Amino acid sequence: MKLSTPKRIGFQGELGAFSQQAIRQLLGLKAEPIPYQRFDEVFTALDARKIDAAVIPLENTLAGSVHENYDLLLKHACEITAETSVRVIHNLIAPPGVPFRAIRKVYSHPVALNQCLDFFASHPRIERTPFYDTAGSVKMIMEERPKDAAAIASELAAQTYGAHILRRGIEDDRQNFTRFFLLEPAGAKPRTIRGSAQHPWKTSLVFSIRNVPGALFRSLGALALRDINLVKIESRPLRGKPWEYLFYLDLWGHRDDQVVRNALSHLRELADFLRVLGSYRAA
Amino acid sequence: MKLSTPKRIGFQGELGAFSQQAIRQLLGLKAEPIPYQRFDEVFTALDARKIDAAVIPLENTLAGSVHENYDLLLKHACEITAETSVRVIHNLIAPPGVPFRAIRKVYSHPVALNQCLDFFASHPRIERTPFYDTAGSVKMIMEERPKDAAAIASELAAQTYGAHILRRGIEDDRQNFTRFFLLEPAGAKPRTIRGSAQHPWKTSLVFSIRNVPGALFRSLGALALRDINLVKIESRPLRGKPWEYLFYLDLWGHRDDQVVRNALSHLRELADFLRVLGSYRAA
Repeated sequence: MKLSTPKRIGFQGELGAFSQQAIRQLLGLKAEPIPYQRFDEVFTALDARKIDAAVIPLENTLAGSVHENYDLLLKHACEITAETSVRVIHNLIAPPGVPFRAIRKVYSHPVALNQCLDFFASHPRIERTPFYDTAGSVKMIMEERPKDAAAIASELAAQTYGAHILRRGIEDDRQNFTRFFLLEPAGAKPRTIRGSAQHPWKTSLVFSIRNVPGALFRSLGALALRDINLVKIESRPLRGKPWEYLFYLDLWGHRDDQVVRNALSHLRELADFLRVLGSYRAA
Repeated sequence: MKLSTPKRIGFQGELGAFSQQAIRQLLGLKAEPIPYQRFDEVFTALDARKIDAAVIPLENTLAGSVHENYDLLLKHACEITAETSVRVIHNLIAPPGVPFRAIRKVYSHPVALNQCLDFFASHPRIERTPFYDTAGSVKMIMEERPKDAAAIASELAAQTYGAHILRRGIEDDRQNFTRFFLLEPAGAKPRTIRGSAQHPWKTSLVFSIRNVPGALFRSLGALALRDINLVKIESRPLRGKPWEYLFYLDLWGHRDDQVVRNALSHLRELADFLRVLGSYRAA
């Protein structure tokens, strides 16, 4: 049975954001991206079925895990059905007709501006100007049409607003990737994303344990003694509950595999709390 | 023997930044904060002994670990000698004489603006305007003196630039803490920070292992089988080396404790690479 493709996909940011690139990688061009200002609004819209699915960043290779979104995953009943990884490429983008030599001012989100410091060091005539959003800065220069200004954003943002790319890939660090999850209402089945049918399964879970000596070691034993391998592990202190920790854990395997089921049931004996966020094909 | 207090302390940001608050908590009012634009400049200045110490954020309860700074810790030979935790409190700050009812525009770093959304939702007349830096936005309004604008920043930023706090603690989430490390040249001894002499020791280390099944389990065994407890663990894939992982680990104990020395030597047998970043009193 083929799953019907979700049509309306919520994300946080402006059209042309890296999240929209993730939506394209996951669902192709037919999915309609629905922008929201805040992450919690995306989750609430999914709860209310105002959108069919959501695409949410969970971690970045430079900036780490987005704890806010892990918290929202725990607050809302939804299921991870696929993952993808987007290479964050920053481009210098201007309205058509504005040449590189005319640029004196560049707008973008401060995080993006700070990821292009080598570019600014070699072009001291250009002033950095913080803006709300990377894609939003392209939208703004296309509306206001300054003769001497550019924006820094994704190629998709340039396409979306009909702007030109003056310089490609001006980010300092090419090892800049963001991992996104496709989220669907609880109980949804995993999706096969272009060619991912042969990829191995991954399962994401969150659990909490009291920090008695060896507690994590015993928990990992539930996996290691069954030869289940980890992809990711991260501890996070539970605020207001000293000595209690939340763990984010990704493992290789599907939650319905017998060995994974046994491991999860073993882990439940040890954990105060455990929730499986989903099983999905590795990107 | 009393350690001499370091005098010139490098940090990233403008005067009045939360990092400067961390410097005060760690070293009191006599330490001179030396601002740098980029984190790598702070580390380079410490290498060259242009500064006596550096204060660097390593993780935030909402935003996660700052991988960039872990990378810099590995690239540069320095030692963690103390830690502290700063509660991130956002205040609405205006030049003296500007009343709350006059405010129509608020400047700050977009991350800070986005952490005060409830405030903006209940004051729809006020427009959010992104700026480079929280403390820098206070500096700017004190120079330009707009009659209808405020900034969002720390109390220290208000003090530093002689501005007034109109509203205190307007952040949405009070569980917003940033953990800072005091860094000194390699071989430096841990420092006692006001009253921390009775606090337990912590040791921070980074190691890498190949992701063979059970590798992490065996590594944690080196600690658990000696009843050494973990404070933090986080995995990070090594880019360009699939299946190899870097682990950030904090444990309770001092690197010179016999049991910790044994555990570290056991861990070295299992790891491809291991570096102890420092032993210091828990904050």
